[in-house]
Amino acid sequence: VKVGILGAGQLARMMILNSKHLGLDFVLFCAEITPVTANLAEHVVASFADYVALEKFCHAVDVVTFESENIESATLDFVLRHKNIYPPKEILLTAQDRLLEKQLFNSLNIATNNYMPIESYSDAVTAAEKFGLPLILKSRRLGYDGKNQYHIKTADQLAALQNVNLVNFIAESFVPFSYEVSIIGVRNAAGEIRCYDLCCNVHEAGILRSTKNIVDAELFAAAQTNLHKIMQHFNYVGVLAIEFFVQDGALLANEMAPRVHNSGHWTIEGARVSQFENHIRAIAALPLGDVSSIVRCEMQNCIGTMPERNAVLQRGGFYHNYQKEPLPGRKLGHVVYIL
Amino acid sequence: VKVGILGAGQLARMMILNSKHLGLDFVLFCAEITPVTANLAEHVVASFADYVALEKFCHAVDVVTFESENIESATLDFVLRHKNIYPPKEILLTAQDRLLEKQLFNSLNIATNNYMPIESYSDAVTAAEKFGLPLILKSRRLGYDGKNQYHIKTADQLAALQNVNLVNFIAESFVPFSYEVSIIGVRNAAGEIRCYDLCCNVHEAGILRSTKNIVDAELFAAAQTNLHKIMQHFNYVGVLAIEFFVQDGALLANEMAPRVHNSGHWTIEGARVSQFENHIRAIAALPLGDVSSIVRCEMQNCIGTMPERNAVLQRGGFYHNYQKEPLPGRKLGHVVYIL
Repeated sequence: VKVGILGAGQLARMMILNSKHLGLDFVLFCAEITPVTANLAEHVVASFADYVALEKFCHAVDVVTFESENIESATLDFVLRHKNIYPPKEILLTAQDRLLEKQLFNSLNIATNNYMPIESYSDAVTAAEKFGLPLILKSRRLGYDGKNQYHIKTADQLAALQNVNLVNFIAESFVPFSYEVSIIGVRNAAGEIRCYDLCCNVHEAGILRSTKNIVDAELFAAAQTNLHKIMQHFNYVGVLAIEFFVQDGALLANEMAPRVHNSGHWTIEGARVSQFENHIRAIAALPLGDVSSIVRCEMQNCIGTMPERNAVLQRGGFYHNYQKEPLPGRKLGHVVYIL
Repeated sequence: VKVGILGAGQLARMMILNSKHLGLDFVLFCAEITPVTANLAEHVVASFADYVALEKFCHAVDVVTFESENIESATLDFVLRHKNIYPPKEILLTAQDRLLEKQLFNSLNIATNNYMPIESYSDAVTAAEKFGLPLILKSRRLGYDGKNQYHIKTADQLAALQNVNLVNFIAESFVPFSYEVSIIGVRNAAGEIRCYDLCCNVHEAGILRSTKNIVDAELFAAAQTNLHKIMQHFNYVGVLAIEFFVQDGALLANEMAPRVHNSGHWTIEGARVSQFENHIRAIAALPLGDVSSIVRCEMQNCIGTMPERNAVLQRGGFYHNYQKEPLPGRKLGHVVYIL
């Protein structure tokens, strides 16, 4: 089987490194080759709007998946004329828009915080009256890792946005949550679903900093129920992650990612079969692997700089360097410690 | 760190797949690129006698290791003028010659079966008189997986060898062993040694068929003592495997492999840090990883044909397809089952 991946970042890298042993080949479609995946797969180097290159890519592979969520509908449609894409296009388009995503959650009876679409400063003022402060304004599209977001705690901070373009934004009520969790599951085309341990996540400035796999039967059951609803709704194939706030012991869905997810990186060492291998197994129509945890562990993201490799290894940590060019705020790697 | 590997078979493949996450790069020196490592590393394609290519290879890497034992001394000497090679050249040359290997074992007070060098049919007759039948004749060099070997059970079988070239052979007494074990350990330049669980191996027709990691404190201690002697003797760096016959509860050293070893493939899923990652850590001067077993498991070699992938995965097995062209008797992959 030859697997095509749209994108060539660390998620593509880890999919290859953790499933190549199955005897598969990979072709990556990307705008440029970087050390992250250089020498790890064939590459088709072009923009997502280059249909000649996309057609070549489609002819070279048996099935297509993606590691980036920022792919235009037209690109997906073109690929779909030639090959299947998993996870399904419909969930990707939904996840690309925070408003559609929240509406989907609610339509499936999955609780969220309060929200309303806004298009202007005066809409933001209305939202502040309705939900109170703090208020969070987010771009509906292309916001991730805290980008294109405003956390408004005071009336002055709100007033300061008078001349900011708030077209296609969403206003969300602030959730005074106890902690954040995510659930990561995999579903195959036959409808079988397996879920990894619930992940307990710590974010700072909108970026995931660390994850532990935790045991909480009640929350786990609730999160699984929500995951099942979404997977069944989309006839999902592959790995799906949903992030929740935990408020007074209940889950409020925050967002979903129709792909392998940062909060599941611990599964490489911590589970029998990693999220990366299980995603590839699902989309390549292979039997799913055991998602059981081997250990309790903590994954820490390396943001902006990498920790000293020898120090991590000396402590018994597992060291993952994505070989990206260091930039402030950039995810360069992660380390995992057994607890 | 850029690691150079002489050879590009499944051992190189598994070294890359299981240590790339450390942020390393790999350059393989090989006679041809095959699907086993295609798209998994840079390649320098040339013969081991091509010194122009070897020099280019040396300039491209920081340290050199090998996955094949069949490398001429002159090639190693040339590489050593530019870069360090680990494990040390001296043990590789010793392991290439069954006579030197047995003599080394005995010089370090490591027990072996009886043996004598032979050069002719009449030497073979002398060996048969001395050791009795069955008698095993092996080429001193270039014999592996049962190749260039004669197992002589009857006087007729011996007589049939009258016109066979037996120059540079070794005659070995037959060991009526209970079973075969191997020990796999890793040593870094500072002299720290860590050993994986003892491996219990089943061979058929000279080829390893399956391995289980077993617990036998007494044999394990004895095997470790032998491994330590050899590692210290050579100031060893990297992974070393030694195979033993177990006869009446005692170990008789059969052969050693100064590299990652087929009987250690179970460590990918069965141990915290695999033999492949630990070999690379040792030669790249990184702290060694935990060799503790996670589970008891059985590795089965796939020889000549691969088992049906879906059937293996459905049973919960771990499936490794090296993507080699199928040939009778060829190791094409392996599977691992948790026991």
